[in-house]
Order: sequence, then C-alpha cells, then structure tokens
Amino acid sequence: MFTVKSVYETKELIGAHFGHLRTECTAVPLAQAFGRTLFEDVLAPENVPSFDRSMVDGYAVKAADTFGASEAMPAMLSFIGEVRMGEAPDISLSDMECAYVPTGGQLPEGADAMVMIEYAEKLGEDMILSYAQAAPGAHVIFAGDDIRLGRRALERGVLLRPQEIGVLAALGVTEVRVAKPPRVGILSTGDEIVPVGAAIHGTRMRDVNASVLAAQTAESGGEPVPFGIIPDDEDAIFEATRKMLETCDVCVITGGSSVGAKDATARVIGRLGGPGVLLHGVAMKPGKPTILGDVKSKPVFGLPGHPVSAFFVFRMFAVPLLHGMLGRKAPEHRPVLARAAFDYASRQGREEYVPVRLSHGADGLIAHAIHGKSGLITTLSQAEGYVSVARGAEGLRAGNLVEVTLF
Amino acid sequence: MFTVKSVYETKELIGAHFGHLRTECTAVPLAQAFGRTLFEDVLAPENVPSFDRSMVDGYAVKAADTFGASEAMPAMLSFIGEVRMGEAPDISLSDMECAYVPTGGQLPEGADAMVMIEYAEKLGEDMILSYAQAAPGAHVIFAGDDIRLGRRALERGVLLRPQEIGVLAALGVTEVRVAKPPRVGILSTGDEIVPVGAAIHGTRMRDVNASVLAAQTAESGGEPVPFGIIPDDEDAIFEATRKMLETCDVCVITGGSSVGAKDATARVIGRLGGPGVLLHGVAMKPGKPTILGDVKSKPVFGLPGHPVSAFFVFRMFAVPLLHGMLGRKAPEHRPVLARAAFDYASRQGREEYVPVRLSHGADGLIAHAIHGKSGLITTLSQAEGYVSVARGAEGLRAGNLVEVTLF
Repeated sequence: MFTVKSVYETKELIGAHFGHLRTECTAVPLAQAFGRTLFEDVLAPENVPSFDRSMVDGYAVKAADTFGASEAMPAMLSFIGEVRMGEAPDISLSDMECAYVPTGGQLPEGADAMVMIEYAEKLGEDMILSYAQAAPGAHVIFAGDDIRLGRRALERGVLLRPQEIGVLAALGVTEVRVAKPPRVGILSTGDEIVPVGAAIHGTRMRDVNASVLAAQTAESGGEPVPFGIIPDDEDAIFEATRKMLETCDVCVITGGSSVGAKDATARVIGRLGGPGVLLHGVAMKPGKPTILGDVKSKPVFGLPGHPVSAFFVFRMFAVPLLHGMLGRKAPEHRPVLARAAFDYASRQGREEYVPVRLSHGADGLIAHAIHGKSGLITTLSQAEGYVSVARGAEGLRAGNLVEVTLF
Repeated sequence: MFTVKSVYETKELIGAHFGHLRTECTAVPLAQAFGRTLFEDVLAPENVPSFDRSMVDGYAVKAADTFGASEAMPAMLSFIGEVRMGEAPDISLSDMECAYVPTGGQLPEGADAMVMIEYAEKLGEDMILSYAQAAPGAHVIFAGDDIRLGRRALERGVLLRPQEIGVLAALGVTEVRVAKPPRVGILSTGDEIVPVGAAIHGTRMRDVNASVLAAQTAESGGEPVPFGIIPDDEDAIFEATRKMLETCDVCVITGGSSVGAKDATARVIGRLGGPGVLLHGVAMKPGKPTILGDVKSKPVFGLPGHPVSAFFVFRMFAVPLLHGMLGRKAPEHRPVLARAAFDYASRQGREEYVPVRLSHGADGLIAHAIHGKSGLITTLSQAEGYVSVARGAEGLRAGNLVEVTLF
C-alpha cells in the first residue's frame, strides 16, 4: 500500500522526478508566436531605435543653448534647415543653431534635445525663438534607448504576449524559436464510459474528462492527443498506455484510480517500467484517489474518473508540470482578496478547494461558495475561481478574508 | 476641428454607434470550442446524470431504515443483491432491504441514500449491518441534479473555458454554435515604415504595430487580417481602406492620426461615407492622437503610429468592441490591490496609464512604475499591468493603495 501524500509532498515529488524535463525547440513565424513560450534568450542584433529620434514636432537644439530661456526671455537660435521624415539629415548643428524635425524624425548631428513647436516661434526665414529651456534628452529617444545592441531583449521562458511580439517585431525577428508544446496523451477508462456523441442508455456515462483535460492541456500550452476510451481491462489499458508512452511526453489516464476491484492503472504503471508508481492518493478534496507514476522518466497520471476531481488534480499538478516542460517561468500567483460569504467546515489533514463566484460589496469583493452537491460539473462552470482551505486549517467563517485564485 | 473627448465619452460614443453589432454564428467541433464564445443559450436535451448515481462504494438503502443507527446499535438490513457498474439494476428495494452499488453505479428503485462500505459489515450471505445512519440523498446524485432536462445549462455569450467544455460534453454536444471571430483589418501607414523582415537603413522604422495589434486581436477573440504598409498618400490609404471595409468588420489604421501635414486618415474616413469621423483626439496618455470613424456602420480606428499608444488605445476601445461583437459578456474587471512604490504627477484633464510590475511586500503587493522614457516598447514588455490615474486626479504618492489591471 502507498501512503497518501500531501499536496506539497506531491509537488516536491513531481519536481524531483520531472523538474528537469524540457520540450524541444521549434521555429514559428512571428505571426503565430503569440501565446507561445520563448525557447531561448533573444539578444538585440541592433539598436532600437536605430537613430536618435524626435518624439515631437519641433526644433532640434543643443540643450545648453536654451538654458535660462523663458516666455519673457526667449533664446534666439539660427534656423539651418529641416529634417524630412524617413530620411537621414544632411545637416549638423553648431552652437546656437537649430533645425526642424517632425515626430519620428532623426535628430541632426550635434543636437541633443527637442523644443516643441508650441514653445517656439519662427522669426523670418532664419531665426527661431525658443520660449522654453530644454533639458538634455528632452523629447528625444536616443539610439538604443529602447533596446541596446547586444543586450538581452527578452528572456527564455517568457510567455509571448502582444507586448513581447512588439519587441520581436522591433528587432526584425520574423521567425521565433519557441518551446514545442508537450504532447499530452489522454485516455479514459471504464466499462460505463461512452464517447460524447454516443446515445446514452442504462447507466452509461459520457466521457466528460477527455474534453475537459484536452482544453486544460491547450490552455497550459500543451498539445492534447486523444487516445479514446478503454474498458476496465488491465491488458487493454496496458497496451493503450504503452502506445501513449511511445509518442507522448505526458500520459493521463482517467478512471480506475480508486482502490477497488477494477483499479488497473496502478498495476499497469508498475508493469510498464521503473521506477513505477510514486504515490497513490493525495490529501486533497476534490481529488484524493490520484496516482502518479514515473515510467522511464515520463510522468503518468492516474486521475479520478470524476470530472471535478480530475479537473482539480490536473490543475494542481499537471499544469505546473507542463509549464516546467515549456521552460515557462512560473506565472506569479495573483489571487484577489475577498470576504467569504459562507462558513466552511474543513476536515483537517487534507487541502480543500471550494469553487466560488464573486460579487462586489460595500468594501471590496465577496466570495460566494457555489451551492450544490460537491462534484457537479456545473459547480465548476458557475465558478470564477476557488478558495483553498489549507491542510490543518480549521475551516472558514463568513466574514473571513480569503484569497481567491481565479480560473 | 473636432474636440478632444474623454475616455468615458469615447466609450459612450462607441456604444451608441457600434453597440448593436454582432458577428454571425458558426459551428465548430467540441474539440475546437475551447476559448470561443457561445452564440446561443444551450438548453439541456436530457438530465445529467441520466440516473440516480452513487458517489461511493457501499450499500443503497432507504434512508428511513437507517435512522438512529450507530456503532453501538447498527441497523440490520436484508442484502438482496449487487448492482453492476454500467448496468441498469434488475432489483428494487422494499423496506429494510439494501443492495451493493459501486461508485458511479445506479441506485435500484426504492433506494434514496448510500451507506459507505466503511460503515457497514456483511453478516453471512444475506444480512448487512449499517453502523451509521444515512440522510436522504446521502452520497447520491439524483438524475438531473447536475443539469436538469430543458433548463439552460450555459448562457449565450459565455467564454468557453475547460469547465464549460465539460458541461457541453456531459450533454452530448459534439458541435458547438459559437460566434464567428470579427475580422479586423490592420493597415500601417507612413513613408518611413518598413516590414518587420526588411533591413533598416537611414531612419526607416519597422512595422511594430501590425504585429502587436494582430496579437491583441487574436487575444480578444478576433481574426487579424493584415493589409500591409501604405505610404503617406491619401489616395493610396483611401483605396486600401475601401478594400478593408469590403471584407472586414473593423478597420484599424495606424500612423497619420496626429494633426499635421500628412494626416490623411481623417480625410479618408470622411471620403468613404457617413456618418464619418466621430472624434479626433482622446484625453488619455498614452494615446491622445486617436481617430474614430463610422463608415456605414463599420468602425474605423485611426491609431497613433507610436506602438505604446496604439497598444493602449486598442486595449481601451477596440478590445471591448470586439467582445461586444462576439456577444461576450464583459469579463469582470478584477484588478489587484497594491501599494504604489512611486510618485506620479498627473496632468489633470486626461486619464493616464502607468505600466507597472509587481513585487511582494510585507503586507501585500507593491506596484513599481517601469522606468525609462515613456513610449518605449520595452516598458510594456516589462509590465505585468498598469495603474490608471483618473482624469481630474492629482496624481499618486508612494504608499497610496492603487488598483493594478493585469495585462
């Protein structure tokens, strides 16, 4: 018999056995890189911007020439010409000279600041009055101010949001080296389980888990690989799992993980190769009857057949594992604070997850437990997140401040 | 001249002109429905579960027969048989009878509760002692407890997360009617703009906006349609925009929206058809030089050429518009609270957005303003979210409690 592990011990065990796993690199066009994870650091092959650029319409100046200038006592500068948009300037500034530069245009050599057109006045053909003083660098982005040549512009493991796509575009990166999605094989077991599209009769149940786990896999950056439904037959499960292991990085088997007559998953893991079953049972609710195996360095999860349990176990353990395999830096946990609107009596010795919805109260958010018997799939679809009641905690009372992890 | 509108007025204007726009319906297989928006209510075509189901391994009983049972005084029940997994029971309970039912099995007629096997003992072939009393419904999910036949299981406009995919799977839905992604045409303008892959020389700038806006469009459930780069030539922009309007639901043009010699976007919108330009300038920073047009009921955005400004304007106005077109219920705004680690002097009369990163302090999160000149694309890629400084607010002081909207 295996002893039941705590959530923490389970995470440690996963880290020890699978923390080193990484998927390979694959190159995708920039237009398909959104939402992917960067495989390696991106070093800037050039300065961004590539030239000293004006942020305003106005006059390029030597800042020192404008010191002390004011409405009452403007600085008088010689106007020596105009820089055109998209063209390199063919002029350079000497002392007490200025040149017109539009927004986005390049500063001529010698200039180190801009005076906005609103603060300047043209006197005839060749004189400009500046009614304001400009600090060095005012309204200018110097070459390399945004991204400096040779520096690390983006770190490996970064999730590519629109902002990071912008950095890559600015650097001229058209193909991005990202982490390959880990392939997650998903197998459902149970004599009573039928495909989603099948008519149900008697006490058949539709295969809810395969669809939910595939969506969770996609959400976490993995590639779901469906392996269908297998009856409660140890040899059939063995054969299907062996095939999964050939082509997948992670195997997930649902059903058959409680301690009972038909529990074949643990035996199958044992037969497939060492080190074998790492744990049988996690002190959490929902989710207790969970199996984790290590078959020749590939993780094999045996998840409870119950959809809500399978959902939470996958979320707690498989999602961080997938992020680790992608090399993704763990997304910071940013729970929102709320007042519990419910009492919750916890059974000590296990971690419990209470699905909640949120509403706005007089002084902040209020968390409402979703009503209904535990384990209904609709309790999850009504929930915006969950409150975790720690192992050893006494439970919750209405009015307690709680941290809600949003789904 | 058009007057500058506030952020609030701009949102009202968008609601009044485009709030009624909806994309069409399209059917996708369940396996591709994750992340899409439900086009219509889903009514349950059947009960879930379809039968009274046991949640435990144990004995199905009439709850009343166990009342008062305890360790010291167990209830004695006649054992009349076993229900097999996945099969409809061929037995029914009379008073003081019980039957074995495995987890997931169907209760026989007459039973209304389960006694867990841990609290029962078998005496010979045909007698069971129950050492605990069972409340009616204990450890049972009755037919329809999860989803009741004919009721609304999911509401139109719902974003399909893994949980909702589970509800659809439980109902046997293999094809899901979802909202078509709004097609967002993206056009960049400017003599100085070159494609991301081009070598840059002189003062050319790479087209950062098209990539960022495409990623933001995808993130918001839309379909980006690239229209390339056009020089600052009014007729060329007119022609490209006319083509965008033929095939797209929303048009986005970047560059050329500040009041200056080459500002063609506003004139192009005017020429394309009524009602035409709705606003020219929004009191926000970054993002002021924004144009919004209504060309025969299609929204046309003229965004600033500056990537950070374009990013914020798209996020503030185009993202909610796309959600509206998808019929998506506005995701609740769930900012996190943090203490500002910076002072910020605001220029009253406009709403300002300060990109921040977060760290953990002694009593909660701390928000750090991203250093660097405003408008650098790297300031966005270093930010986890932003603090919005309201129009009319005096600015921020270090130590103030602020709401951080996460990206």
